[in-house]
Amino acid sequence: MSKTKLTAISGFPEFLPEEQILFMKMLDIIRDAYERYGFSPIETPAVERKEVLISKGGNEKEIYALSRLAVKKGEEPNTELALHFDLTVPLARYVAMHKNQLTFPFRRYQIQKVWRGERPQAGRSREFYQCDIDVIGRGSLSLLNDAEMPNIIYHIFREMKIGPFVIRINNRKILQGYFQSLGLPTAQMNDVMRIIDKRDKIGTEAVISELTDHTDFDQTTAEKMIDFLGEEVKTDELLTRLNNMAINELFSQGVKELGIVIEGIRGFGVPEASFKIDLSIARGLDYYTGTVYETLLVDHPQIGSICSGGRFDDLANFFTDEKLPGVGISIGLTRLMSRLIKEGIVKTGAATVASVLVTAMDEKRTSDYLRIGSTLRNAGIPTEVYLEKARLGNQLKYANKKGFKIAIIAGEDEFLQDSVQIKNLVTGEQMICPNRELVQKIGTIL
Amino acid sequence: MSKTKLTAISGFPEFLPEEQILFMKMLDIIRDAYERYGFSPIETPAVERKEVLISKGGNEKEIYALSRLAVKKGEEPNTELALHFDLTVPLARYVAMHKNQLTFPFRRYQIQKVWRGERPQAGRSREFYQCDIDVIGRGSLSLLNDAEMPNIIYHIFREMKIGPFVIRINNRKILQGYFQSLGLPTAQMNDVMRIIDKRDKIGTEAVISELTDHTDFDQTTAEKMIDFLGEEVKTDELLTRLNNMAINELFSQGVKELGIVIEGIRGFGVPEASFKIDLSIARGLDYYTGTVYETLLVDHPQIGSICSGGRFDDLANFFTDEKLPGVGISIGLTRLMSRLIKEGIVKTGAATVASVLVTAMDEKRTSDYLRIGSTLRNAGIPTEVYLEKARLGNQLKYANKKGFKIAIIAGEDEFLQDSVQIKNLVTGEQMICPNRELVQKIGTIL
Repeated sequence: MSKTKLTAISGFPEFLPEEQILFMKMLDIIRDAYERYGFSPIETPAVERKEVLISKGGNEKEIYALSRLAVKKGEEPNTELALHFDLTVPLARYVAMHKNQLTFPFRRYQIQKVWRGERPQAGRSREFYQCDIDVIGRGSLSLLNDAEMPNIIYHIFREMKIGPFVIRINNRKILQGYFQSLGLPTAQMNDVMRIIDKRDKIGTEAVISELTDHTDFDQTTAEKMIDFLGEEVKTDELLTRLNNMAINELFSQGVKELGIVIEGIRGFGVPEASFKIDLSIARGLDYYTGTVYETLLVDHPQIGSICSGGRFDDLANFFTDEKLPGVGISIGLTRLMSRLIKEGIVKTGAATVASVLVTAMDEKRTSDYLRIGSTLRNAGIPTEVYLEKARLGNQLKYANKKGFKIAIIAGEDEFLQDSVQIKNLVTGEQMICPNRELVQKIGTIL
Repeated sequence: MSKTKLTAISGFPEFLPEEQILFMKMLDIIRDAYERYGFSPIETPAVERKEVLISKGGNEKEIYALSRLAVKKGEEPNTELALHFDLTVPLARYVAMHKNQLTFPFRRYQIQKVWRGERPQAGRSREFYQCDIDVIGRGSLSLLNDAEMPNIIYHIFREMKIGPFVIRINNRKILQGYFQSLGLPTAQMNDVMRIIDKRDKIGTEAVISELTDHTDFDQTTAEKMIDFLGEEVKTDELLTRLNNMAINELFSQGVKELGIVIEGIRGFGVPEASFKIDLSIARGLDYYTGTVYETLLVDHPQIGSICSGGRFDDLANFFTDEKLPGVGISIGLTRLMSRLIKEGIVKTGAATVASVLVTAMDEKRTSDYLRIGSTLRNAGIPTEVYLEKARLGNQLKYANKKGFKIAIIAGEDEFLQDSVQIKNLVTGEQMICPNRELVQKIGTIL
């Protein structure tokens, strides 16, 4: 029989078990943090109606639409459905649709795959996980929510142990007010945001040239603006300076909000070294209207932002007249893990989640081996019993290859003594252990 | 502005937070059990090449294909990709593709959504979760693996506390051998399996009439077969009787395997009341070749099987010449939860995963409220701090609506005493508690 060809599909990553185990560890850290801050889980279907996805400005060229591979005669293969490209548009639809069944402020986390048909490139995939939280208010939402987000970011990346990081914070009203004062038309506001957001990638020179090419800014104004964005001063000094710049109302509003958020972040106990104001943070997305965040690894800035987000005044305006302001963050975990592995910041470990392998030397004793496995599992210790026929040497080779920490070995001698051998596969040590002490002894080793 | 319409998409369920929390609890029980038995996580992309999905006999009318919603001029909107409809075909492709990087026996769990464009009907969705485990051997695989599966099923549904259940076990070789002895041509074997598999749904009469209509069986033979399938006798008595029926080699092989599996199940310690041999279990799917399982809730048989699976001799024969036998089970969790809720077997609870709400009465004390929240979270207690301006009464209303168990209340009086009020929202009790005892006291209440 001819075999179906097997090649990876570009842009659709899949992991080996040791990679998936690392992925799940990181995912569990994120989920645990989200839950510890009182965010409730929701999931939305992977598909939405096409018009819902387009309403919020989705890039149609990157959206995957669904059709039936085959249909009954006379049926239409095309559906009105497409795969979601982020979790924010589905959230907006979800909140607008279920608002009378939800309790506000609505705090939700959502960890799901999203799909984008963009050209796959370094670190970007067509299918990837996003891990989002957002708080949505009905009518209004306190700025303390904006202050809580950096605290959650801090909690997560401290737990991940991936080195020092800085959460960079800004308020888009400051930028908008400043651009207004330089005479920029409102219609060009988002274009300028998008251009300066690329500075880390394309450099200051390219930003200035894009600004002069595509907006009303001339060279002098563009340079002046870059100077304003680039000030490297301490948080309080910068806040004072901004407070003294009476540029216009929007600017002052942004400065006031930023001050409240910074004060809140300190109230939450985030250390000074882990956050700073960075006026150059703009975020490319149109819908942010106030606070914006990015998070950089201090020793690996080339990775780019590992967690970003911001405040939006009106999440669901395409679906409801009710004003639903929100603030949230997102971690693109698939991309993050690939980059962390590539940079050598995290390493994959064992290919099994079990710590203990119960080896089997004597077929007549099968039920005893199974019983040892059950004892350990009942004590909460993930355990595999080797169920195939194989020589002990091969079973231990299997254990080492998969990365078990402990092998249990027992033959007639041990059974007669109501004991087993515990072999520590990390140190190579081996010791005899009475069955009644087994759980405790293994607990000590792990 | 005209609003985009908001209606649910038929067949694509989405849950409110309290439902999703229940779903996650059940999912965590399953995942924990799978890990405790040493199964490693993997995920495959939601999409596969169309030819991979079709190779294994996927129903093309139920497969969703992917195309670009819009493309650049001259580009082709259609892709060669489609959404997977189960996790078994992707597993076969994964194992064949990565077999030289995997360690065999390969034990993996996979918990993902799958998509089937079938007509939505009671309890069936177009998008739903499957929670699968399979063990794959390279060349051979011990029958002890078939015996381990019922043990894992037992572990999971005991943990779920959804009432008594029975795992019904059979071996398709017994059926095939028996049908052969009745003169059934091999080409009709799978048709007969599929027809008798429907007996619970359509009844014995309809099965007999389908058999006589669509196969070589006449009325007498069909009735004789139904008699054979229907015997309600004790496990050991039935095994003895089957052992004494020297029908043909295939039949005897099936009986022998079934005996080994039953012995293994007892070795694993599954209670007699939770499993039984049921010769009428056939499973509709072609690829099972030996052991097959179904699991029924004793008091709610109308729900149908809540966990099914079986042994397949050659998983990946469409992708590789290497023989890869396997055995596995699958839980369709989306469907299971809907049915359990509908039958009143499980109930949704709180709409929050946090146990404690720290209320805020005094804006000047914001940082103190935040600090209380941090203290509890650092102790591992999921906690929300109320961040909006609202009267205490409204904050407590919010707490009750969301289902918090405890509210922390503190004003100037409490702060002066370095204490807080703990309000038990379940009993209504309220007590003052010194800050230094807070974590311990709350631990006691929860």
